[in-house]
Amino acid sequence: MPSGTEQRGEALGIISASKVNGTKVYNKAGEALGSIYDLMLDKQSGHVAYAVMSFGGFLGIGEKFHPLPWDQLTYSTAYDGYVVNLDKRVLENAPSFGTADIPDWSSPTYRTGIDDYYHSRH
Amino acid sequence: MPSGTEQRGEALGIISASKVNGTKVYNKAGEALGSIYDLMLDKQSGHVAYAVMSFGGFLGIGEKFHPLPWDQLTYSTAYDGYVVNLDKRVLENAPSFGTADIPDWSSPTYRTGIDDYYHSRH
Repeated sequence: MPSGTEQRGEALGIISASKVNGTKVYNKAGEALGSIYDLMLDKQSGHVAYAVMSFGGFLGIGEKFHPLPWDQLTYSTAYDGYVVNLDKRVLENAPSFGTADIPDWSSPTYRTGIDDYYHSRH
Repeated sequence: MPSGTEQRGEALGIISASKVNGTKVYNKAGEALGSIYDLMLDKQSGHVAYAVMSFGGFLGIGEKFHPLPWDQLTYSTAYDGYVVNLDKRVLENAPSFGTADIPDWSSPTYRTGIDDYYHSRH
């Protein structure tokens, strides 16, 4: 797709999923927390349910993934990234998985655990 | 993200956006029409608004992109792809853009044109 496509669309709030991946995530204090690794979609509703944020690690070693309820993220033009109202300590204790883990997305318990941790409702 | 993550989740209708990209699209007659190139998200609602399907072309030459309203696509485990209730002729006359075009996603007229063509409502 030609470049420029998504930039223009953002004015009206349309953005391409592939462009979201790699976008940095900050907290309200302006600390960089990680970046968006992928988006998890609810196929039935067509909603984005979770953003999977990669967090820490170096060249993939020690990398952790945090699924964040999508409604926790707000796009900031100032940061050119997403802002979440969470500090690093909250994230460190949040549901996460490593590169060798397989989260069980089919488990309502797993999803409820994420939602409850962030006090999110879908 | 470890492989297997998305496969399990599909049981409950959770799928990763990056996995959607590249998925083939078929019509009801089983003809391959193209593949998903990207998803366009409505940032405010968190909904997937359009799937951009790449269509035809060889090594990128002559490639065309068709934005399809997301609600037109149904996932089929039999095809391991999406099925749309459209024949090739309908798609050939549908709104599309080439690799050198920039669709104006910020234009309500542009979006309404797509929705009207497919009789879709968002």
